[in-house]
Amino acid sequence: MKQINTSPISGMQELLPKTQAEFNRFKHNIAQVFAEHGFQNIETPTIDRTEVLLAKAGGDTEKQIYKVVKTAETDSEADQALRFDHTVPLARYVVEHLNDVAFPFRVSQIGRNFRGERAQKGRFREFYQCDIDVVGRNALPVEYDAEVIATLIDALKLLPLPGKFRVRISNRKILNGLLKALNLEAQAEEIFNIVDHAEKVPAKVTVESLENLRIGSENVVKITTFIEICENDATRVLSKLQQLGIQDEDFKAGIEELKVVLQLVKLMQPDAEVVADMKIVRGLDYYTGTVFETFLIDYPEIGSICSGGRYENLAGYYTEQKLPGVGGSIGLTRLFYVLQNYGTITEATEAPLEYCIVPLAGEGVVERVLTLARQLRALGHSVDIVWGEKKLGDKIKYASKVAKKLLVLGENEINANEFEVKDLNTGEKEILVLAHEK
Amino acid sequence: MKQINTSPISGMQELLPKTQAEFNRFKHNIAQVFAEHGFQNIETPTIDRTEVLLAKAGGDTEKQIYKVVKTAETDSEADQALRFDHTVPLARYVVEHLNDVAFPFRVSQIGRNFRGERAQKGRFREFYQCDIDVVGRNALPVEYDAEVIATLIDALKLLPLPGKFRVRISNRKILNGLLKALNLEAQAEEIFNIVDHAEKVPAKVTVESLENLRIGSENVVKITTFIEICENDATRVLSKLQQLGIQDEDFKAGIEELKVVLQLVKLMQPDAEVVADMKIVRGLDYYTGTVFETFLIDYPEIGSICSGGRYENLAGYYTEQKLPGVGGSIGLTRLFYVLQNYGTITEATEAPLEYCIVPLAGEGVVERVLTLARQLRALGHSVDIVWGEKKLGDKIKYASKVAKKLLVLGENEINANEFEVKDLNTGEKEILVLAHEK
Repeated sequence: MKQINTSPISGMQELLPKTQAEFNRFKHNIAQVFAEHGFQNIETPTIDRTEVLLAKAGGDTEKQIYKVVKTAETDSEADQALRFDHTVPLARYVVEHLNDVAFPFRVSQIGRNFRGERAQKGRFREFYQCDIDVVGRNALPVEYDAEVIATLIDALKLLPLPGKFRVRISNRKILNGLLKALNLEAQAEEIFNIVDHAEKVPAKVTVESLENLRIGSENVVKITTFIEICENDATRVLSKLQQLGIQDEDFKAGIEELKVVLQLVKLMQPDAEVVADMKIVRGLDYYTGTVFETFLIDYPEIGSICSGGRYENLAGYYTEQKLPGVGGSIGLTRLFYVLQNYGTITEATEAPLEYCIVPLAGEGVVERVLTLARQLRALGHSVDIVWGEKKLGDKIKYASKVAKKLLVLGENEINANEFEVKDLNTGEKEILVLAHEK
Repeated sequence: MKQINTSPISGMQELLPKTQAEFNRFKHNIAQVFAEHGFQNIETPTIDRTEVLLAKAGGDTEKQIYKVVKTAETDSEADQALRFDHTVPLARYVVEHLNDVAFPFRVSQIGRNFRGERAQKGRFREFYQCDIDVVGRNALPVEYDAEVIATLIDALKLLPLPGKFRVRISNRKILNGLLKALNLEAQAEEIFNIVDHAEKVPAKVTVESLENLRIGSENVVKITTFIEICENDATRVLSKLQQLGIQDEDFKAGIEELKVVLQLVKLMQPDAEVVADMKIVRGLDYYTGTVFETFLIDYPEIGSICSGGRYENLAGYYTEQKLPGVGGSIGLTRLFYVLQNYGTITEATEAPLEYCIVPLAGEGVVERVLTLARQLRALGHSVDIVWGEKKLGDKIKYASKVAKKLLVLGENEINANEFEVKDLNTGEKEILVLAHEK
């Protein structure tokens, strides 16, 4: 027999049943929060046209995308690949179904995406993302930015995170406006990059990087002052930003939007830690206004666990229609991995099923066991029945692995019509009392 | 702007939100039935090693499999492809986690699989399958075959099928034993094929095909008699099969297994239409004992909506361990498509959300609207809030598309602390009464 490697390929998360049950519970709870906040669920195909998926992408995305090799039967189709996020297929979906959805379109997506990243601990190539988006037609009020953030906070609250988390919000228009007012648009990409990395390097390095751009010491001071602005109070952010003395429409519009977002999120999530933080840029992404990231306060090294922002023209590559949107995403596969490693998901010690029934040999036993199982299942209980000729001891050993409660039923029990249930954790016994069958 | 085709690629099912909600409900209900019957859910990666996926496959599978092109980062990995069913990755999973699961391992899988089939109406290249399997270590009693079938029947009962369905069961050992006893093992493949196609062609064609094999007229009669056996009563099947006068151990063992399966399924599903039908073979699949298919009685042209069987050595390609299993699958994507086309899933006329709140301008309105939304959501209701400067009429029009109930709140309502809810279907109005917040 040829030896075949049976481990999952590198970068895949494969869980044992008990852990999978926990993962499924998280996924279900997040879906429930999204629904309560008025987001309607959709699913897009895993496989899409490469030209759709890469219409806007570039850089890493293009290098990491998994293309699929077509079969003899699908040969005449266009180039195809696996989706790498939910936002790009959503853009296609909205354009395709433009006349069939109501705008603003509040939409959720929970599914697996694919990126062929370099294999490393905690990085996955196939991963669940839980996304919400609101897509407007022509316009979309900034209040929706706040609703997306507040909804994601509600979802995060349900997860057993190690300690508190902090949502850090900024608005791209502010930095854009600042650079415009300072006549630094030519250096915008470098400066965005320096701001984006500011918290990963000592302040000195940031200053040096800015000085290397030869933009004048006054501008360096303005930008470093800007970078340091981090406030949880909308009024104070406003005042600090105004102190920069910038006269620019985008700058002012960005501040105004940020103010509304901060105020509304505070109203919706009074207990959450939410700050305006000018270091938040969201790298090379397609965001145009609000941007946000979420960090575990005690574990900043994990990076952002929930991010998103506003994109002014979601589907500009597919349609002339203006479709502004705002969205955010929880990377569930990675977050689950983190929670496992930080010990907040403890391996379930409880058996997964409720009842395990072991029928003994005897007249009428199988019939009665099947009726009993049906009754218990009709009440929503999970029931396993152990068949076969194994020794009773082995069957009970199996039962104790999969179920919380054991029933061993033979002719005596059937005739007495009294079923003893043994709690497999405590060893306690009690008589099963069934409500009348529905 | 380059024109990009925004339709999903051929062979993909993409649903509008209301229809997606219905699909999700079916999927959820099926998962619930599987759990009640003691099956633990797992997920395997979508991408796996080609050598794992194709270890046993051949024929169409090999031609239809989607390989994935690795990226620069994943280049050193083995050849990879998308899984085409749940059974093959399950075999790998069980071998990989042999010491971490309890046997018999009752396991469910609900997810998307991929086959690059020729595009045609109602055939999907990416499709949900809902699978259950029981995998034994060394041995697996035949009673589990009955439990798999009975569980799948319970799942099918929850779907709005057009009319009744019939489960048709056979056992491969019977036909194998028959051919062995008749010294026709050399022609087994052709005869399996003829039996498999018997119901799609006139009886005359079947006889001719058998005659063409030059196996003797007595054998042709035996096989055609065999093919015609179709009974819902275990005793009658038994007697008809015995009348063939075959002396073979496999033949007898197959009959004995079929008898147990029929009897148990009858006990578990007294109302379901279940027959023993010797025409059921399950083509070129890897089954070795029990085989079954399920047809809609009034729509046989749809083909089997739920099939499966017993495979004596699931993971023979990966391990020396003997791991017999039995499983079955509901092809949910295709079935959903069929139900849509036969009109049993009517486009939901009800709006998807429960409440839509329209805040009017005014002091304290936003704050009160947000509190109200939080209260309603805490009670499990779905709530949308309509933001922005649009005309009230437009907002109400939007609300009537997405929600069942409307609240328009301004300063007057806030001050009076009395919120009028309008039922958007009936036009009736009532005052919102909230239980105390949890």
